[in-house]
Amino acid sequence: MTKRSSPKQWQDLHAILATEDHDRLRQFFDDLSMSETALAVSRLSPSEQKRLVTILEPSAAADVMEDIPTEQLADIIEDLTPEQAASIMDELTSSRKSELLLEMEDEEVEAILHAMEPGQADEARKMLSYPHDTAGAIMVSEFLAYPDSATIGAVLADLQSNKSRYRSYHVQYIYVVDDRKKLVGILRMHDLLFSLHSASLGELMIKEPLHVQIDDTTKELGEFFQEHNFFGVPVVDKDGTLAGVLLPSAVEEAFNKKSVHQFLGLSGIVGGEEFRTMPLLTRSGRRLSWLSINIVLNILAASIIAMYQDTLATAIALAIFLPMISDMSGCSGNQAVAVSMRELTLGMLRRQEFLRVLGKEIGLGIINGIALGALLGAIAYLWKGNIYLGCVVGGALMINTIIAVCFGGVLPLLLKKFKLDPALVASPLLTTVTDMCGFFLVFSLATMVLPRISGI
Amino acid sequence: MTKRSSPKQWQDLHAILATEDHDRLRQFFDDLSMSETALAVSRLSPSEQKRLVTILEPSAAADVMEDIPTEQLADIIEDLTPEQAASIMDELTSSRKSELLLEMEDEEVEAILHAMEPGQADEARKMLSYPHDTAGAIMVSEFLAYPDSATIGAVLADLQSNKSRYRSYHVQYIYVVDDRKKLVGILRMHDLLFSLHSASLGELMIKEPLHVQIDDTTKELGEFFQEHNFFGVPVVDKDGTLAGVLLPSAVEEAFNKKSVHQFLGLSGIVGGEEFRTMPLLTRSGRRLSWLSINIVLNILAASIIAMYQDTLATAIALAIFLPMISDMSGCSGNQAVAVSMRELTLGMLRRQEFLRVLGKEIGLGIINGIALGALLGAIAYLWKGNIYLGCVVGGALMINTIIAVCFGGVLPLLLKKFKLDPALVASPLLTTVTDMCGFFLVFSLATMVLPRISGI
Repeated sequence: MTKRSSPKQWQDLHAILATEDHDRLRQFFDDLSMSETALAVSRLSPSEQKRLVTILEPSAAADVMEDIPTEQLADIIEDLTPEQAASIMDELTSSRKSELLLEMEDEEVEAILHAMEPGQADEARKMLSYPHDTAGAIMVSEFLAYPDSATIGAVLADLQSNKSRYRSYHVQYIYVVDDRKKLVGILRMHDLLFSLHSASLGELMIKEPLHVQIDDTTKELGEFFQEHNFFGVPVVDKDGTLAGVLLPSAVEEAFNKKSVHQFLGLSGIVGGEEFRTMPLLTRSGRRLSWLSINIVLNILAASIIAMYQDTLATAIALAIFLPMISDMSGCSGNQAVAVSMRELTLGMLRRQEFLRVLGKEIGLGIINGIALGALLGAIAYLWKGNIYLGCVVGGALMINTIIAVCFGGVLPLLLKKFKLDPALVASPLLTTVTDMCGFFLVFSLATMVLPRISGI
Repeated sequence: MTKRSSPKQWQDLHAILATEDHDRLRQFFDDLSMSETALAVSRLSPSEQKRLVTILEPSAAADVMEDIPTEQLADIIEDLTPEQAASIMDELTSSRKSELLLEMEDEEVEAILHAMEPGQADEARKMLSYPHDTAGAIMVSEFLAYPDSATIGAVLADLQSNKSRYRSYHVQYIYVVDDRKKLVGILRMHDLLFSLHSASLGELMIKEPLHVQIDDTTKELGEFFQEHNFFGVPVVDKDGTLAGVLLPSAVEEAFNKKSVHQFLGLSGIVGGEEFRTMPLLTRSGRRLSWLSINIVLNILAASIIAMYQDTLATAIALAIFLPMISDMSGCSGNQAVAVSMRELTLGMLRRQEFLRVLGKEIGLGIINGIALGALLGAIAYLWKGNIYLGCVVGGALMINTIIAVCFGGVLPLLLKKFKLDPALVASPLLTTVTDMCGFFLVFSLATMVLPRISGI
């Protein structure tokens, strides 16, 4: 389906860049698929990337840039002069433009907007002003709108004479607006087929068409497209003015971004996506910022062990089970976190339903706690032949599993209540709490039977 | 935008169900948004869900079912008789149908397919036969195709007389096929506008239209839509026969599913999504299946501590740092896993590029290892006033961080090579390896300076 090139070929880019031959460079990228383009560009040094953009004319550069993930492209564009950046930005689609600008620092955004065509800059400014998970931020501003007084003949004539421009438009409806640009009706492209050329849009249009509000959230928009099999839906502002058109694929993409954010956040990648093409110190710093919070929380948890150092010295075998209880409880808790986050995303759980989650998790916690506690307790008993050690270790894991799943289950609800992002905060917080509880349980139980387990 | 209902209202469902009043039930669901429907149905007992489906006529039941997440719907449908299930399935769209059947056990699928209309069942069987991440599995079979000999007039007449059926069709192109059903051309709906009614499609169509193969992967399809702003693209099988139409939103949805799968897998939710409406034992069993592998791996790692129990008894303070080193290295490694998985998904990393990943991670590992090792070493030193303890703890964390990021970075590549799913396997495997290395490092370094740290 896509054009193939040998792996060798995309590594030739360095050589072609050195020749500064515009046509050869353009030809080179024409032969590459999207992921090959992304790969080839990612393997260039920052100065080569800059040269690439300088050699290619803006429209050809924009074609190449369309194939590169947003985060990475933002890095490349930040290194250009505002004028170079602006001339490429002017060629990108409206939604891509705002995605890119969102990745950049405020000052850079201002410099680039200043250098862009005034009309394009105003449009970009407007899109940036909408909250990121609303219709305004993901709609397209390329659509066909005509006044209700226009005739079918006039519309057809306009379509004919602007054919090439409209080809890149993504929507198959004609929107009808009144003289204050308010949306009053809609026509499907092929409704034009069966109409007299002299008829006006106002006579033929479907009145009071379905539409969404500019501040509707992606969740509401997802539901809209689930209920209505449309190719796009008009977006109106609070005055009813037609502001843009929303495509179902943009809504799916917004959901996808959310999932990626959750996946990366839970894995400790915060502050935007990381690519290995980014400067080493940026990558290192971002990862460290998360790890350094983690180490502080770890120290907090370990202080429980320090408090019970004497108990530990009496029954050194306990030390073997501490990391296991910590890790297993963390895993049990993370499972519950993931289920809650997923149910929240799908709207199957409301953020005030603490009791429901607790009710559902406590039963599961008891079953899994007994199963895991019995397993680990039996292993401890068999290993040292000491039933008390088995009870301490198994009992601690059992109780801590129940705590971990209950706390893990309600944690995303709690974080949402305090307007914190579960993807970033849930995992470190959960681990700290379950570690502390786990260590505390082991030592509390051990203290009760200390004479029976001393010297093991 | 969507119709609102008070929270109280959706709890009335129990009462309405008890009355068995079809019209009131239908009215009830008409007033709910999609997420409210999902919520309301999820709160019913299995027997109430069954009654709901029995009271509503199949098309109304299908309307309700469209609003419910696939995993949950599969659970409801599995409880029905095959005949009830089939009558609802017949009303669903082709892609939804195959999603649902994929969630069920083979026997149940056979029973339901047997009870479905033969044409629908054949179509569903065909879709199920395509691998899950290819065009075949996510295309729609509702499209407009006409022979190349048909005239514009004949097409227009057919469109007019089947208007209501075609309304639910999602694609705005007309596909032209030859007498062996091979795709030979394409027409945009509004190209019909400017043509003589007596002209044949063969004369007007765009010949050799862009298309995708039925076995193209979602990644290739994503690139296709990135390059081409189409509303849909025809899918052909290996003989060139038109098999279906692929919509860009279906491709985005497939990507979204992949992200969700990664997010859930890394959090220890395997074997499909979990909802709290599922039976307790199912949920418990699925989570335990993952945890029980984890506990075995944990025991493996802890056996390193057991081997060094005498060293530990001599320097009991080490026990405080073992869980910290284990947790911190695991986090560092998981960050590298996430970056590699993301780069693989985006095509910015090829699965054979081990050396590239190692080269990029080793530098980062050294920087972060030194930073974290120095921090933890300093804390250990300040706490006990023993520089050797600081060096053992700090040194172990430093070296283990380097190991963790390098191993974490290449692990997804390794797993892909052996056709294992990184989302499910990476995290437990990584943790085990970094735990074992970490414990081993602490004790090896401690053994070297044992007289200096004994009794702390």
